[in-house]
Amino acid sequence: MANEKALTAQAEDFSAWYNELVLKAELADYSPVRGCMVIRPYGYRLWELMRDRLDLRFKETGHQNAYFPLFIPQSFLEREAKHVEGFAKEAAIVTHTRLKTTDDGKLIPDPESKLEEPLIVRPTSETIIYEMFSKWVQSYRDLPLLYNQWANVVRWEMRTRLFLRTTEFLWQEGHTAHASHDEAEEESLRMLGVYREFMEEYLAMPVVVGEKSESERFAGALRTYTCEAMMGDNKALQNGTSHNLGQNFARQFELKFASEQGGEEYAWNTSWGVSTRMIGGLIMTHGDDAGLVMPPRVAPIQVVIVPIFRKDEERDLVLGKAREIVAALPGIRTHIDDRDKLTPGAKFFEWEMKGVPFRIEVGPKDIAKEQVVLARRIPEGEQRKEFLPEAEVIASLPQRLEDYQTFLLERARARREANSYRDVATYERFREIIDGDGGFVYAGWCGSAECEEKVKEETKATIRCLPFEEFRSPSAPSACLVCGQSAAHEAVWAKAY
Amino acid sequence: MANEKALTAQAEDFSAWYNELVLKAELADYSPVRGCMVIRPYGYRLWELMRDRLDLRFKETGHQNAYFPLFIPQSFLEREAKHVEGFAKEAAIVTHTRLKTTDDGKLIPDPESKLEEPLIVRPTSETIIYEMFSKWVQSYRDLPLLYNQWANVVRWEMRTRLFLRTTEFLWQEGHTAHASHDEAEEESLRMLGVYREFMEEYLAMPVVVGEKSESERFAGALRTYTCEAMMGDNKALQNGTSHNLGQNFARQFELKFASEQGGEEYAWNTSWGVSTRMIGGLIMTHGDDAGLVMPPRVAPIQVVIVPIFRKDEERDLVLGKAREIVAALPGIRTHIDDRDKLTPGAKFFEWEMKGVPFRIEVGPKDIAKEQVVLARRIPEGEQRKEFLPEAEVIASLPQRLEDYQTFLLERARARREANSYRDVATYERFREIIDGDGGFVYAGWCGSAECEEKVKEETKATIRCLPFEEFRSPSAPSACLVCGQSAAHEAVWAKAY
Ligand SMILES: [Zn+2]
Ligand SMILES: [Zn+2]
Repeated sequence: MANEKALTAQAEDFSAWYNELVLKAELADYSPVRGCMVIRPYGYRLWELMRDRLDLRFKETGHQNAYFPLFIPQSFLEREAKHVEGFAKEAAIVTHTRLKTTDDGKLIPDPESKLEEPLIVRPTSETIIYEMFSKWVQSYRDLPLLYNQWANVVRWEMRTRLFLRTTEFLWQEGHTAHASHDEAEEESLRMLGVYREFMEEYLAMPVVVGEKSESERFAGALRTYTCEAMMGDNKALQNGTSHNLGQNFARQFELKFASEQGGEEYAWNTSWGVSTRMIGGLIMTHGDDAGLVMPPRVAPIQVVIVPIFRKDEERDLVLGKAREIVAALPGIRTHIDDRDKLTPGAKFFEWEMKGVPFRIEVGPKDIAKEQVVLARRIPEGEQRKEFLPEAEVIASLPQRLEDYQTFLLERARARREANSYRDVATYERFREIIDGDGGFVYAGWCGSAECEEKVKEETKATIRCLPFEEFRSPSAPSACLVCGQSAAHEAVWAKAY
Repeated sequence: MANEKALTAQAEDFSAWYNELVLKAELADYSPVRGCMVIRPYGYRLWELMRDRLDLRFKETGHQNAYFPLFIPQSFLEREAKHVEGFAKEAAIVTHTRLKTTDDGKLIPDPESKLEEPLIVRPTSETIIYEMFSKWVQSYRDLPLLYNQWANVVRWEMRTRLFLRTTEFLWQEGHTAHASHDEAEEESLRMLGVYREFMEEYLAMPVVVGEKSESERFAGALRTYTCEAMMGDNKALQNGTSHNLGQNFARQFELKFASEQGGEEYAWNTSWGVSTRMIGGLIMTHGDDAGLVMPPRVAPIQVVIVPIFRKDEERDLVLGKAREIVAALPGIRTHIDDRDKLTPGAKFFEWEMKGVPFRIEVGPKDIAKEQVVLARRIPEGEQRKEFLPEAEVIASLPQRLEDYQTFLLERARARREANSYRDVATYERFREIIDGDGGFVYAGWCGSAECEEKVKEETKATIRCLPFEEFRSPSAPSACLVCGQSAAHEAVWAKAY
């Protein structure tokens, strides 16, 4: 049960607000294993709802789920040079397979069980999956292979944050093989589109989509595409990426096929992933000082019903009515809070903290009047609570949930736009924004790693992406924000998680 | 695509039949990591269907899903003496967290990244879960906690078999905490019942349920209950277990609560699990020399439609009809095999190997007569194929699938009973059965570990369980099969996987 103590205000300390909220809303908890979190039932139910929707879309776009080993032989990681460079420094390494008791009664890894080749707990599965693909693919007729895996992965991060950066996290990783570059490119963009659609339509989280600069590219990829969302503190969160891997992995894992023309060619791969990190994004996109704000389509509880009664005689009557209301809302995820030891006020506090979209209060007087009290987690105008005929509430709730979903997306989009800056012509103005309240800065970039690096060092802001056409400014910036030379791209800069 | 070569016959070499079938039906494949398998899409879809049904039942019985860390600190495993004894010899141990390149260019675990305390990749999660429970539980009001986790676990097995015994496997582990012994006992029996119902009603796999003898008890449990199924070679497979853990773990992890009476008490725990091993059980319960036999309720494809045509002009007509049939069967998992390069015969072979319950063949002549050919994977009588009016097939398929489901369960039950032996009075007769075709032998047991061990050493048979009342013989055996002394229990003996 959430402790009835207010959160630190966002304006005071956004980071403290976030950590407190994750714990108080019982989404997750710290574990005794450094950097690993426990996802509690409320957080896990949210993940299940997100996963189920994404899984449906993956299947609709022709993908199949499979499962590959947790362990990667060290030599596999070594084969793709950039890949090992990217993951070697944060690897959980299995070296022994047995514990033994020493003469003085201590338990130690048995030296005799030392593995000849260490195993790495997967940080991502390109290597082992493409090794398997190379066994299964002979001819162009076997292509494309469109696979997805829901799994846990481990990256030994030094500084961790619940959901945002944890040593172990849950994710899905799509892995595909194609007969041509263009098909792979199309696939990587298609899946980026699936992510964007999910984030906007389900998480009510608007994203800027585009390509990563070389320095931010996935270790071993030809091109990396990304969905970038703006958080409540105006920092960016990379929420999902899709990679065109070219033939880099295919070459290292001998993933070849007999082409239609009769030759032998290396396949073209893509990979794409989203993780429990999105939960952090959802919290920081919509949350406020009272707690979480759940978009209805992924809310574990969409409507909570709080029965109000003083005397025991009233209890049965009011609970009976609550059950009637639940029965009348079959397509909606409802919950009756029938705890006896808690005041209605304490219940309201808890369900607001947990971000439940709608609350229905019903007491003996309401029943007599055939009305209920309806409260929306974020009201549209001033009114916190409405007294409405019960029948009207039941009939309108599905539409109200959809309207609220749209409202949250529009609110987040307006917030993002209010904190996005275009036509930023000087580096001074850029620093003023970034060192001030922050936000997304659209500006010209010459394309050089030096300018990118200089900005990162001086301001901690990075190029979040080179945005796709629809996000670009009406008139393309002509000069690089940093060096003033001719701009090769328009880039979105921001501080990021 | 399955290779059109027959399997080794079951009668010739059951074990070879099994291994070949898992590969040919594309359920799983060997991986480059010793003992770890790859679950291929057809096998993973089966697992998803099994998981979804079980998950629904867990939720219906009040459980919530959560997720706990992959890693267990070594000291946690040590706290429960029997528990560490049970798992120390097959542990994947993480000792380092970084790879580094040596001067001669070799990659090694960086000695400076050595962990102070090794981490064990979870073989099961009692320890870390009860540690977390102890943080969350203060009062009897916080109980019961009814949790479940879907996860991968690792046990470093020496001899592995696809699905049956792999180093890494997928499973669910339920973990609960209660205020009293009786409540915990009720829970462990309830979940055993959920397992049994699932195995019988979904996997069409009859099971004998009962209690494990002390030697076969889960490491750290008070009592272990089990579901034991008979495979096609008359060996037993332990398919799922449920444990009353008593207060053993609660004591070690300080899982205490303020009781209603005001005192402080240790909680009572249960844990229960089933794994991808059940897929092995499904294969060996129903499969035959032609391949898999999928029970309809978990079959990834329930009805496959094979369009038959010679000329290109016929192709559109026949495929159009196939799509019409699919559209007319909305609640059924269908698949149209429209591959052009394969003969109908090769397709029949492949779908029989994959155990699809029903096949519909449709060609131009059938369309003219408004009929289709219907074939059931295991016919009831002699008839392999029936020519039936299309409308009749469409109308009757849901019922046919249910009938086939029941047929498979009854067939498996009859098979098991035909290979079960009661009233086995002498040890000679017992050896004759076990050393011969095998089977389940119901016989008296005095309750001594010596008699149990003697049987195991001499025959490799073990006590599978002390069966619950409904499975016991009409008249209880009076003497121990081994020593002839007075029988304390009736036991089911068999060789097992
Ligand atoms: Zn520049
Ligand atoms: Zn005896």
